[in-house]
Amino acid sequence: MKKQLGVRNCMYPMPTVLAGSNIDGKPNYCTVAYVGILDNSIISISLSKTRYTGAGIKQNGTFSVNYPPTSLVERADWCGIVSGRNEDKSAVFENFYGTLKTAPMIRECRLNMECRLERIIEFPGHDVFAGEIVETWCDEDCLSGAGVDFGKIDPMLFSSGGERGYWRLGERFADPFSAGKNFKP
Amino acid sequence: MKKQLGVRNCMYPMPTVLAGSNIDGKPNYCTVAYVGILDNSIISISLSKTRYTGAGIKQNGTFSVNYPPTSLVERADWCGIVSGRNEDKSAVFENFYGTLKTAPMIRECRLNMECRLERIIEFPGHDVFAGEIVETWCDEDCLSGAGVDFGKIDPMLFSSGGERGYWRLGERFADPFSAGKNFKP
Repeated sequence: MKKQLGVRNCMYPMPTVLAGSNIDGKPNYCTVAYVGILDNSIISISLSKTRYTGAGIKQNGTFSVNYPPTSLVERADWCGIVSGRNEDKSAVFENFYGTLKTAPMIRECRLNMECRLERIIEFPGHDVFAGEIVETWCDEDCLSGAGVDFGKIDPMLFSSGGERGYWRLGERFADPFSAGKNFKP
Repeated sequence: MKKQLGVRNCMYPMPTVLAGSNIDGKPNYCTVAYVGILDNSIISISLSKTRYTGAGIKQNGTFSVNYPPTSLVERADWCGIVSGRNEDKSAVFENFYGTLKTAPMIRECRLNMECRLERIIEFPGHDVFAGEIVETWCDEDCLSGAGVDFGKIDPMLFSSGGERGYWRLGERFADPFSAGKNFKP
């Protein structure tokens, strides 16, 4: 039996990422689960208009997306509770820089993407930062075969839609563009 | 040791959804993992410009997002392999309509959202359809306590970033906005 829940955003689970930007030359990170894929190499993070990280993205036109493993849950969650306006987050992780030079990344995160700001799309509550990926970084031991092994990345998945939760990724169970190829309608 | 992978979109895992629209009054569905959250009640699906479902969204200004459970992997994957231009997908699932009347939803999916098209954001390869959620539907036995229990929704998660895969959701392991509250930097 279907139940109507009213207007409830259930586009979950989403990967929980740490978005990074430099503000006045210093790294800052915030926890984001309002993320998305817009085009093949363009991703999005949506930040409440008051977020400190957003100011840094506007300063440099660059940002990073970092995947904390579940073992970093305490620090990753803290970065979503506390604002960089009030707390210095530049020494919470080991920072590194890549191609763009101004998008700080987190060494302890197993997967990182550095992005050039492609555009900002405004909505009533959030600015959507569309980022063109310019380089992807991954811990060598999280690669297998053709690419990134998300089982080894061990991402923190976020859900809301009522009660919020962090979830682990389960097992890989099927092949896309293959599992359905023998189906007959 | 970090390895550079070049430009590789790793914004995964993402929920695999079936996007629904009516085309000439008939339901059509396609499989999408290029999804996102833009604002509190505004979500996105990105469709290659040639997708048949996109034409239906433009016709009616409405669409739906449906969550196939892992047990529907064969049919759900098939909807991403085959175009509605060539195959009639209107009888693959049991359809139902809600508030908007023109956004077909799938009874066998445990979670459904019907959306009013808020805007289309154009990118080189994809049109991003921003949808304002107007109603959320959930199977009663997938609710627990305050809301939707994603463990019971049993979503199909999609990853790429090299090798593509469908994954199960794992266990819930921590509370957002709480796990980090005692962290001291």
